[in-house]
Amino acid sequence: MTAEKTGVWFLGARGSVATTATVGALALRARLIDPIGCVTELPPLRSPALPGWSDLVLGGHDLDTTPLPKKADALAAAGVLPARVATAVADELSAVEEELRPLPHAATQSQLVEAIEADLRSFRQRHSVERLVVVNVATTEPVPSWLPEHDDPSRLLHDPLPPSALAAYAAFRAGASYVDFTPSTGARLPALDALAHRVGVPYAGHDGKTGETLVKSVLAPMFALRALRVHSWSGLNLLGGGDGANLADPGANAAKVASKQRVLQDSLGYAPQGTSRIDYVPELGDFKTAWDLISFSGFMGTAMRMEFTWHGCDSALAAPLVLDLARITAAAHRAGRVGPLPELGFFFKDPLGDGPSDLSSQWDRLVTFVGTL
Amino acid sequence: MTAEKTGVWFLGARGSVATTATVGALALRARLIDPIGCVTELPPLRSPALPGWSDLVLGGHDLDTTPLPKKADALAAAGVLPARVATAVADELSAVEEELRPLPHAATQSQLVEAIEADLRSFRQRHSVERLVVVNVATTEPVPSWLPEHDDPSRLLHDPLPPSALAAYAAFRAGASYVDFTPSTGARLPALDALAHRVGVPYAGHDGKTGETLVKSVLAPMFALRALRVHSWSGLNLLGGGDGANLADPGANAAKVASKQRVLQDSLGYAPQGTSRIDYVPELGDFKTAWDLISFSGFMGTAMRMEFTWHGCDSALAAPLVLDLARITAAAHRAGRVGPLPELGFFFKDPLGDGPSDLSSQWDRLVTFVGTL
Amino acid sequence: MTAEKTGVWFLGARGSVATTATVGALALRARLIDPIGCVTELPPLRSPALPGWSDLVLGGHDLDTTPLPKKADALAAAGVLPARVATAVADELSAVEEELRPLPHAATQSQLVEAIEADLRSFRQRHSVERLVVVNVATTEPVPSWLPEHDDPSRLLHDPLPPSALAAYAAFRAGASYVDFTPSTGARLPALDALAHRVGVPYAGHDGKTGETLVKSVLAPMFALRALRVHSWSGLNLLGGGDGANLADPGANAAKVASKQRVLQDSLGYAPQGTSRIDYVPELGDFKTAWDLISFSGFMGTAMRMEFTWHGCDSALAAPLVLDLARITAAAHRAGRVGPLPELGFFFKDPLGDGPSDLSSQWDRLVTFVGTL
Amino acid sequence: MTAEKTGVWFLGARGSVATTATVGALALRARLIDPIGCVTELPPLRSPALPGWSDLVLGGHDLDTTPLPKKADALAAAGVLPARVATAVADELSAVEEELRPLPHAATQSQLVEAIEADLRSFRQRHSVERLVVVNVATTEPVPSWLPEHDDPSRLLHDPLPPSALAAYAAFRAGASYVDFTPSTGARLPALDALAHRVGVPYAGHDGKTGETLVKSVLAPMFALRALRVHSWSGLNLLGGGDGANLADPGANAAKVASKQRVLQDSLGYAPQGTSRIDYVPELGDFKTAWDLISFSGFMGTAMRMEFTWHGCDSALAAPLVLDLARITAAAHRAGRVGPLPELGFFFKDPLGDGPSDLSSQWDRLVTFVGTL
Repeated sequence: MTAEKTGVWFLGARGSVATTATVGALALRARLIDPIGCVTELPPLRSPALPGWSDLVLGGHDLDTTPLPKKADALAAAGVLPARVATAVADELSAVEEELRPLPHAATQSQLVEAIEADLRSFRQRHSVERLVVVNVATTEPVPSWLPEHDDPSRLLHDPLPPSALAAYAAFRAGASYVDFTPSTGARLPALDALAHRVGVPYAGHDGKTGETLVKSVLAPMFALRALRVHSWSGLNLLGGGDGANLADPGANAAKVASKQRVLQDSLGYAPQGTSRIDYVPELGDFKTAWDLISFSGFMGTAMRMEFTWHGCDSALAAPLVLDLARITAAAHRAGRVGPLPELGFFFKDPLGDGPSDLSSQWDRLVTFVGTL
Repeated sequence: MTAEKTGVWFLGARGSVATTATVGALALRARLIDPIGCVTELPPLRSPALPGWSDLVLGGHDLDTTPLPKKADALAAAGVLPARVATAVADELSAVEEELRPLPHAATQSQLVEAIEADLRSFRQRHSVERLVVVNVATTEPVPSWLPEHDDPSRLLHDPLPPSALAAYAAFRAGASYVDFTPSTGARLPALDALAHRVGVPYAGHDGKTGETLVKSVLAPMFALRALRVHSWSGLNLLGGGDGANLADPGANAAKVASKQRVLQDSLGYAPQGTSRIDYVPELGDFKTAWDLISFSGFMGTAMRMEFTWHGCDSALAAPLVLDLARITAAAHRAGRVGPLPELGFFFKDPLGDGPSDLSSQWDRLVTFVGTL
Repeated sequence: MTAEKTGVWFLGARGSVATTATVGALALRARLIDPIGCVTELPPLRSPALPGWSDLVLGGHDLDTTPLPKKADALAAAGVLPARVATAVADELSAVEEELRPLPHAATQSQLVEAIEADLRSFRQRHSVERLVVVNVATTEPVPSWLPEHDDPSRLLHDPLPPSALAAYAAFRAGASYVDFTPSTGARLPALDALAHRVGVPYAGHDGKTGETLVKSVLAPMFALRALRVHSWSGLNLLGGGDGANLADPGANAAKVASKQRVLQDSLGYAPQGTSRIDYVPELGDFKTAWDLISFSGFMGTAMRMEFTWHGCDSALAAPLVLDLARITAAAHRAGRVGPLPELGFFFKDPLGDGPSDLSSQWDRLVTFVGTL
Repeated sequence: MTAEKTGVWFLGARGSVATTATVGALALRARLIDPIGCVTELPPLRSPALPGWSDLVLGGHDLDTTPLPKKADALAAAGVLPARVATAVADELSAVEEELRPLPHAATQSQLVEAIEADLRSFRQRHSVERLVVVNVATTEPVPSWLPEHDDPSRLLHDPLPPSALAAYAAFRAGASYVDFTPSTGARLPALDALAHRVGVPYAGHDGKTGETLVKSVLAPMFALRALRVHSWSGLNLLGGGDGANLADPGANAAKVASKQRVLQDSLGYAPQGTSRIDYVPELGDFKTAWDLISFSGFMGTAMRMEFTWHGCDSALAAPLVLDLARITAAAHRAGRVGPLPELGFFFKDPLGDGPSDLSSQWDRLVTFVGTL
């Protein structure tokens, strides 16, 4: 008897994160690499409930049409992934290339949703996929100035919706679960939530926690547990790459910055002075440097400081988490979980629901959750 | 009816940590300051089982004879504590000065232990102290080249013992509990452990976790929980002050450095390359700067880095923890706890027993423990 | 025979920079402090042509009315200057307080200029001052959207002028030289330049180089001299204090940021990617932290990076330079120098004229210049 | 008529620095790369007196026998040089491989010197080389506990000499000039200096200035020119690679550390507290990270700090300088310069002679010097 197939459909399938995730998934299947960065391979999370690396079938949409192998070569040249791995999985990568579809163009929102849904259903059928997870790793959308608040899914398309919400809509209609790794709107609309419940699928998000915010989610609790008073916490994120260019747009930037500061208020119980900035520096490519200065005081008010610098490669940090999320969300779907998955807060800057914001508590919650699947 | 009195007896009572703790305890009693840095004042740890600030009676030994108010003035001039607080508690500080005793001189180890014990008993009697905690905040001793392994307390003084062990011996004989905030030997001898059990007192240690290691105890678990591979972790600690001068001695330095790296092995499950160095820079005074470089890799081996710099004031970080430890250890004593207190690992670089080394788990264990007192 | 008196008139006389400069000048006169930070006391610049510390007479304008001794106490409490020095010069400081004047209010620009001029003339006469230097250390003005380009001083007041230009106008009419330590307009108008020439006085500026830009002015030439290719240079300046609040205003901020990047283009011959940001963090008080990331490549394009963090106290860095500038500008005036003094580029972020932008060449030029006075 | 040939003979010809220099020289000759990091290509140093890239003939000694192309591939894999460049010059690299000789073994020092000399003479003859420069880029030798002080070259080999001195001896006997890019002894013996004068050849050294010390040589003068008082300057250098392993040896380390601190005393006129440490972290490979903390005070003693981190690739920084030194030393030889070349202090941590230690003055001196050739 063969194992059930799990489909993973990337929105932004030719972007750095999805390309890295795809190459990595193929390499894991071929046992070419260790699962560095894959939290579902840590002993407390290993579970037969999760689909195996060999059970994942990959596909996706993208506006871009550059072939996946060419994207992988560019990432190898930029030091994001090893050239030898890209070469070793070249055939499998070309096979995935066959599963990618251009993002459909349509005259109306309804038609667009239908076209996306059709692509998803066709993919499921073609590969006899039991369960499908749609994962949004497309570039961040601007914060919408207006969000429809309808409870009634049937009225949803009466207002203009951002692409991430249309994709979530199509996913749910196709019976797929949905993961938003970006700060975009995604499934965060009452009517979409209602639809997810009606269809019986789970969804997860928002905004993968890969760098500065990850560090904040352990340092802020440290200050809190030691009863130290944090006066200011200021940060600068310098990044190139596609996401960097997009975040130079003040609208998109605002969304990201807001989700970056949430962890401080949550962990400390108050908002220190300072803000977190994002600047686009094309030269940095797929790498990102974040610097944070924290000023705090100890006993009787003595002034002290801490700084940190994080030199990370966002795609290499995000890609394994994206695969983890696909595995866990598919298993949750299989286990009958429906609606938002607040138990996945460990992965996100701005998690759905009201869970803890310190990484350690988020981890405990995740371990418990996976144990129930 | 008046509350029970709890005695706190500092070894190194005129040093920076003890002086800061003393000024702070007096200021807390007078409600002159907020309890910044006092973890026993955080809601999950607040407990009627802990002695109140007004119930603490302070005393101590020191080789130095500089009056406490003069020490406090020097710390105020150095920015370690506010001059206005030192001024406000000047009378109470002079009263504590009356309770300090020169470290006794004696011809033999037996006589020294007896003399210390006599000072402790006299202090208890003079102030009708119910329970006494001896807290070692004297400068770090060199790692002893030889440690007596006798199980029999009666044979203990046949071998030369370091001062911290003699003090623990005297404390136990006087029915006092013992806390070691330094990496020195203290109560870590089988015969002393046996004595603590026979007498029925608890003890805690070792080596207060106030700066670089505190940060490591949240960052190392972060890398572990994200399945990132840490290749090297190197650090440099620059510090002045009395402890700095002492740690310039390679022997003492080795003790401290070893306890600083333990958290990495414990959290990661392997020891990354690199070491943690301590350099004495007198000009830095009571302030300390630590810099750490962590090299790690993500998915498919992509190389990344993190750095942090910690500009802390050790005395201002240590002093409130020392008071927290005295309160909790006294309460544990009252509750009948005997022998080592591994539940206090939250406070230490090199905790007694086999507890977790990540700060978050240590916190959970501490909260549970205090709840049982 | 007594030495000639030199007047120093501060615009913003109660601000942090002027207060620190005043306390320091009094302390230098009384030989209470070493001349740390005073470049005119370095052997190559020591010159009998420069007025001695005892020959300086201080006065100034300010909108604020808080007494100078109170300002000095606040700076001492904030760690900007030592309390013992402020106490030691208390009497002399009160004497300077008597020389401070509220910034005049007037119905028209002409009347305001006349009122300022009258204050300056009265000060000169009262103290038999030979030469007067007006030094602008008031808060930075927004970049004016429009600047009058008239060559004719008589038509100057037909257009609205920023306060710094009005002050320069009044200074020149009173026969005083003018130094602008801020990025404000000051004397940088053709008609004011013409007036300075007609009256026969020199002027200097703009924007004191005290922190991040000072470091840039040695690091950028280092990269240039080693033929290394700088790809990006990004910076974040976090500052509190009055200047911080003012620079939070995007208009003023733009002026400062522009002058901060000029040194890169000048030193490297091209503009690397990246920008320099200023954020207001009130909690940091008079202290400023700047962080810069420089990405560059070496032989065959190998990618490398450098970062620096500067934790400086702007007032303590600016104050001695302000006194240096007053001494040198007065000596230049005495030596018959008229119009802009591009030889003082060593002191400024955005120097007048076309001089070198690397610190070392600026120093050589300064030494030569002082030698001719 | 063809141009004169200049020979460059590397001691340590298969090491990272020499391999990178060799690949780079071949790529410059083929116009495949821009001369990033080559200071002799900056306009003020461009001179017809310097041999062109096409006029250099490369050879060398090494204990190691790994073929040069294999070394180049390893450096490409490590990110030190681009794989495409190594591939493009593969044929020329194999040709250089033919010119490399194993370091001769000999029973006595005299025989070893003769064997080296024979290799040098054979290389000169084989390629009709007009002038030969021997460049030491072998791993750093321990500081010799004893150095012969004889003035008489004929008695030199009566005492045991370090390999770098034997190589200098052989070079001079073969009529070649000598450059020491390491802190080893090299030509720094009176008898060797006498020999260089007798033979009529120049020599240069010591210890290439490529990272932390380069930065120090501009920052220390910055503090000095601003009359700021530097209290402490502490640094940690973390490096892997062959040189790292070697410098883990305390003897070699001492040599390097001493030359790293010289610039502070020279620039500031006093030695601040602190030291510069070197730690071997194999995982860092050919890359090096240095962190420095500088504590200083401004006006009236206000305490401030600066930190910097340098993430450099030593081989990519050293290689172009090694080529620059070969070109300039050959031109100096041609111009009749004999003995030490203190004018090349720009390149070294521990320059020969008594020149300035600030980078800017060293540059001026270098420009003047090259102008006389």
